[in-house]
Amino acid sequence: MQNTIGNNLTLTVFGESHGSKIGAIIDGLPAGIKIDYQYIDKCLAIRRPVGKIETARVEKDNYEIVSGVYNGYSTGSSICILIDNNNINSSSYETNKDLARPSHADYVANVKYHGFNDYRGGGHFSGRITTAIVAAGAIILSALEKLNIKIGYHIKQLGNVIDSDFSIFPEQVDKVNDMIFPTLDNLEEKMSQEILNVASENDSIGGIIQTAIINLPIGLGDPIFSSLESKLSQAMFSIGAIKGIEFGLGFKFANARGSFVNDEFVNVNGKVVTSTNNNGGINGGISNSMPVIFNCVVKPTPSIGKIQQTINMQTLKNSQIKITGRHDPAIVRRVGIVIKAMAGLVIADALITKFGQDVLIKKEIG
Amino acid sequence: MQNTIGNNLTLTVFGESHGSKIGAIIDGLPAGIKIDYQYIDKCLAIRRPVGKIETARVEKDNYEIVSGVYNGYSTGSSICILIDNNNINSSSYETNKDLARPSHADYVANVKYHGFNDYRGGGHFSGRITTAIVAAGAIILSALEKLNIKIGYHIKQLGNVIDSDFSIFPEQVDKVNDMIFPTLDNLEEKMSQEILNVASENDSIGGIIQTAIINLPIGLGDPIFSSLESKLSQAMFSIGAIKGIEFGLGFKFANARGSFVNDEFVNVNGKVVTSTNNNGGINGGISNSMPVIFNCVVKPTPSIGKIQQTINMQTLKNSQIKITGRHDPAIVRRVGIVIKAMAGLVIADALITKFGQDVLIKKEIG
Amino acid sequence: MQNTIGNNLTLTVFGESHGSKIGAIIDGLPAGIKIDYQYIDKCLAIRRPVGKIETARVEKDNYEIVSGVYNGYSTGSSICILIDNNNINSSSYETNKDLARPSHADYVANVKYHGFNDYRGGGHFSGRITTAIVAAGAIILSALEKLNIKIGYHIKQLGNVIDSDFSIFPEQVDKVNDMIFPTLDNLEEKMSQEILNVASENDSIGGIIQTAIINLPIGLGDPIFSSLESKLSQAMFSIGAIKGIEFGLGFKFANARGSFVNDEFVNVNGKVVTSTNNNGGINGGISNSMPVIFNCVVKPTPSIGKIQQTINMQTLKNSQIKITGRHDPAIVRRVGIVIKAMAGLVIADALITKFGQDVLIKKEIG
Amino acid sequence: MQNTIGNNLTLTVFGESHGSKIGAIIDGLPAGIKIDYQYIDKCLAIRRPVGKIETARVEKDNYEIVSGVYNGYSTGSSICILIDNNNINSSSYETNKDLARPSHADYVANVKYHGFNDYRGGGHFSGRITTAIVAAGAIILSALEKLNIKIGYHIKQLGNVIDSDFSIFPEQVDKVNDMIFPTLDNLEEKMSQEILNVASENDSIGGIIQTAIINLPIGLGDPIFSSLESKLSQAMFSIGAIKGIEFGLGFKFANARGSFVNDEFVNVNGKVVTSTNNNGGINGGISNSMPVIFNCVVKPTPSIGKIQQTINMQTLKNSQIKITGRHDPAIVRRVGIVIKAMAGLVIADALITKFGQDVLIKKEIG
Repeated sequence: MQNTIGNNLTLTVFGESHGSKIGAIIDGLPAGIKIDYQYIDKCLAIRRPVGKIETARVEKDNYEIVSGVYNGYSTGSSICILIDNNNINSSSYETNKDLARPSHADYVANVKYHGFNDYRGGGHFSGRITTAIVAAGAIILSALEKLNIKIGYHIKQLGNVIDSDFSIFPEQVDKVNDMIFPTLDNLEEKMSQEILNVASENDSIGGIIQTAIINLPIGLGDPIFSSLESKLSQAMFSIGAIKGIEFGLGFKFANARGSFVNDEFVNVNGKVVTSTNNNGGINGGISNSMPVIFNCVVKPTPSIGKIQQTINMQTLKNSQIKITGRHDPAIVRRVGIVIKAMAGLVIADALITKFGQDVLIKKEIG
Repeated sequence: MQNTIGNNLTLTVFGESHGSKIGAIIDGLPAGIKIDYQYIDKCLAIRRPVGKIETARVEKDNYEIVSGVYNGYSTGSSICILIDNNNINSSSYETNKDLARPSHADYVANVKYHGFNDYRGGGHFSGRITTAIVAAGAIILSALEKLNIKIGYHIKQLGNVIDSDFSIFPEQVDKVNDMIFPTLDNLEEKMSQEILNVASENDSIGGIIQTAIINLPIGLGDPIFSSLESKLSQAMFSIGAIKGIEFGLGFKFANARGSFVNDEFVNVNGKVVTSTNNNGGINGGISNSMPVIFNCVVKPTPSIGKIQQTINMQTLKNSQIKITGRHDPAIVRRVGIVIKAMAGLVIADALITKFGQDVLIKKEIG
Repeated sequence: MQNTIGNNLTLTVFGESHGSKIGAIIDGLPAGIKIDYQYIDKCLAIRRPVGKIETARVEKDNYEIVSGVYNGYSTGSSICILIDNNNINSSSYETNKDLARPSHADYVANVKYHGFNDYRGGGHFSGRITTAIVAAGAIILSALEKLNIKIGYHIKQLGNVIDSDFSIFPEQVDKVNDMIFPTLDNLEEKMSQEILNVASENDSIGGIIQTAIINLPIGLGDPIFSSLESKLSQAMFSIGAIKGIEFGLGFKFANARGSFVNDEFVNVNGKVVTSTNNNGGINGGISNSMPVIFNCVVKPTPSIGKIQQTINMQTLKNSQIKITGRHDPAIVRRVGIVIKAMAGLVIADALITKFGQDVLIKKEIG
Repeated sequence: MQNTIGNNLTLTVFGESHGSKIGAIIDGLPAGIKIDYQYIDKCLAIRRPVGKIETARVEKDNYEIVSGVYNGYSTGSSICILIDNNNINSSSYETNKDLARPSHADYVANVKYHGFNDYRGGGHFSGRITTAIVAAGAIILSALEKLNIKIGYHIKQLGNVIDSDFSIFPEQVDKVNDMIFPTLDNLEEKMSQEILNVASENDSIGGIIQTAIINLPIGLGDPIFSSLESKLSQAMFSIGAIKGIEFGLGFKFANARGSFVNDEFVNVNGKVVTSTNNNGGINGGISNSMPVIFNCVVKPTPSIGKIQQTINMQTLKNSQIKITGRHDPAIVRRVGIVIKAMAGLVIADALITKFGQDVLIKKEIG
């Protein structure tokens, strides 16, 4: 399956950067979920570029839900969300249409799709498609919040500016969920400056998004092959710029001793918790009720204004490219809400798988 | 799906650490593949514990292929491999059966499976199950090698001992594939000493496995949701001890500039390559014919000989546990061949998806 | 999966009878397929009601392809087709909104979806959704025809009017594919009269569609569970009115002797065929290169103008209903093209599974 | 997927008629189900040939459950059941190994699997594999019975001997479930005589199995593409000899009027039922709480003792074959329990999908 993900709750996406519409279909959502349009608007607003630190292509993201919703509630059938592409400028792409942008999908797409792929703006590989993911995810996320399951993220790193980690019981989730530029240590200005610096040099920069999912029940995830880590990672790597994921301590485990990093269980007032959360809320692929914590690394935007070596895809001759279209010097902030949307899908799917089709409209889980 | 993975080529596993048999089923393999029993034996031998640095539970791993093979060749029907569990000693598990081993799946399994899970030796969560994965993977890997697609790995890090990275065109794959303890810089002795050190302190240590897949055609992977990274990561996180994966530069992208890390295309004698391989052979989720490179972090074995705090799963009371069974102070080396097996499955599945059911028995791909 | 079907080539549908739009997504189609708009128009025209024998709700079926097609060719990404609902009249449904129409999905939908389903015009259960299936199917069918694989159907039975069977090598496929009301024995008038008869009595009538798929290669279908019969039947039963399917002799096998109905193999001028085709082109779940022949029974439209007993879904009290909306006295003819579309999907999916992602753009199969 | 079926509850099968073992894996069954070995034995006994009317190959069907069961209860991990093949006599198959048995899978398998398929006894296409399906199904069926969901079948037709239909509320399910040769009208003797007659002429005969599933909740099945009819039919066509399926009135709908066959709803003492059940308990693809009724036609065993025309698969030359191995003159009776097993899988999977992973161990559904 290429453009559909999920087991009992699925997301299907379509569209190309410069096509007429993009969109998404959610299937498997129970009937009776109130569609929170403000919540969708808020999520889309977070994804849109802000100020000078991001691309000048600003879409209004007007969306239309054409199926699966009646009188403001989900009907139980597949929900299709359509979003128009308006602010399209393909001219810069025409200039370079035969030149493979380094670290983009142009070349592999040209070979795999025999030159028939819509190359304008990256086509189906464009970050534009994530607008549909965010809109669809917002419907799911707002349903999860009714069950008190919350997902928050912050920019843990941008270039060499580093934010703190979530604390072990991250009340900060509410805080970051209200921020357009979420950091725990008020690093918006510092990180923005870093972005402006690289932008001024026609360059781009990467970063890390740290995500926390709180108030999960014990028991989500179905090892061996549908572990919660497997499902979350599959979802995250569908986001173009992400090149790594780690749970809990992640790569720091490499130089760690078991006696230091094992998460000991402790009964605190009748509730079993762990005294540390180095495993990021997951044991053996299954949620253990501690916050699920994971980091995703976002590579620097491949589109930069400097001249780069490449090949001409028609002639295969060595060439040079100077990318002139609109693009983000750092995509890190904007990727956050896409991660949150995809995480919401995975969690809701896991809940439905474990507790049945109607869990999302119940008063409480179980 | 819990114990089955893959789209057109699937792997199904079963078994518990102290049950009578474990096993695996491969489905979707074309008819006519010669079963290379020596190759299977070699892979199983690599997975078995060696010397003093690993567990004292040594299974002979005698396997039997009971279906899907006739006269030494695959028949096109599902291949079932059975492996006996012989060297079982459940006594130490009986002592601690109500105590949740920290950072193990005991507690979540007890809740999710209502106490009916086979707790002995970790049951279905045991690394023992990976024997079946390795046996099944070996059949696939030997078929891939006939197409000149090779997968190699080395221990990139163990505690604070760090190996070099694969070079950009890693001829080292052949070299490491002949090693029981594969490193590029002859670090076996140093790493073994590190393991013995932690073992002497009743402790355990983590590490990183770096994997390279070479000679892939362009075009494997089906974005958005079946990108090669999505498929590989889903497969890797099915391995118990793995808590992170990164492709190419991975988490180093966080503090990298596009101008430094973009992989420029260059035509070298008629073949399009990239002058660097920071994206680990994957652009936009699709193989670009450069080596696919990824790192997996392996956490320190949770089973350590020190006293740890925990809860009693029957009473939920706070308790202490001292784990006395046989276990590995470092599982890193042994995980390598499991990663290789799972990677082989993902690659073969991607090949079959793209080129059809018979690609593995063709003279060449395409 | 609810609204997505297929393995390597998938169809996803959405929409409700009286919603703003319905639509379909095809995913997995190779890049480079020329979109034949005339072919789509023709299929949609066949599906639309004709004259007095069918419903007065005539939609223009204007469709828009908003993704996956660029410059008239498929791009390799997911193709979304949107169709507006225009000719909507919900008034008659408001009158009866609490009354479960007998043999319709109203009651089960009301229970399953907790009353949130869009009841107007049957909502997502409406035959209206099949418009999207036909539009999507048309793209696939026209690609199959380039490989000389053709699918034809005729009305084998309507009430007590019975058409001949396809002959063993049905050249009639071309003939019936040019007919709006396809029969082999020129039964249009007789069957139309039968429909007008039942219509005049405020009643409805059923029938049988017989389908032939010709020029298939040997080897499609993957037993045990993805046999060609399994895949075709799953697809057919997604069409609301269909209540039975049989391959080849089908239910006539019940009183048949092996010696009479076994299909003997015979080499005719170097080509292996069978001298009869009682198994409908499928042995052991796999295509044998003979025409695949199957019959689908279509039940009489449940919507009839007579007063019927039923319950009120709010009060559960016994009630009476008189259905006054627009409906077809016989849906048989219109179901034919939906069967053809779904069969096209199954066959194309089986081809891609066996021969790889690009088989549909090759000059010939294999 | 070829040898795995199901969404949340899956069945995977392996084995070949003359291989060393066949087997099945059930995955997704909740932990805590008591394994009823007597029930398994009973189901296997029903499947075994009886007396003179069926094949002389009688296997003891000794099975071993090697995983997923501990202390007599399911553990929540995948359950593997192994069954030995003992009573093997491949000699007759060697004689005819190059001759394609008419209406068998020999020829298509030879082409699809390039001659590497295990031809002995039909290999993976053999009815022998259904032993594993029955053993696995028995575990599921006994769990369903704890929830009072029962599945029964009878031989509705054998040659020209015709049994009555199930009554609208078929208390006969209990009765037929106690019979080796289940008919409603005591037709065992008559049907057995019919079988002996055809056997004496070296011939074979077909028939129809009618199945009833009672006490289902409303709401099973997920239209459009996972309707209960789609799921049941996919499962049934995985059984080799089945060539047709119909729900409720089935093919009789072709000449039926809506006013006669619509199932009117009626509230009887607070419970909504239908006064007829022509739709076989399914409206719009969803269970309506009435008994699910379906008929499967079973073709006459292709193996007959008469000389038949065929081709030599090596030379493709026209040839003759006389089949001398052991085979059933009618497989109808023995197919019944396989249908029941597959139906049990589909229903349990639908229950788990709707109500969650633990529904089968709850006191009641919902």
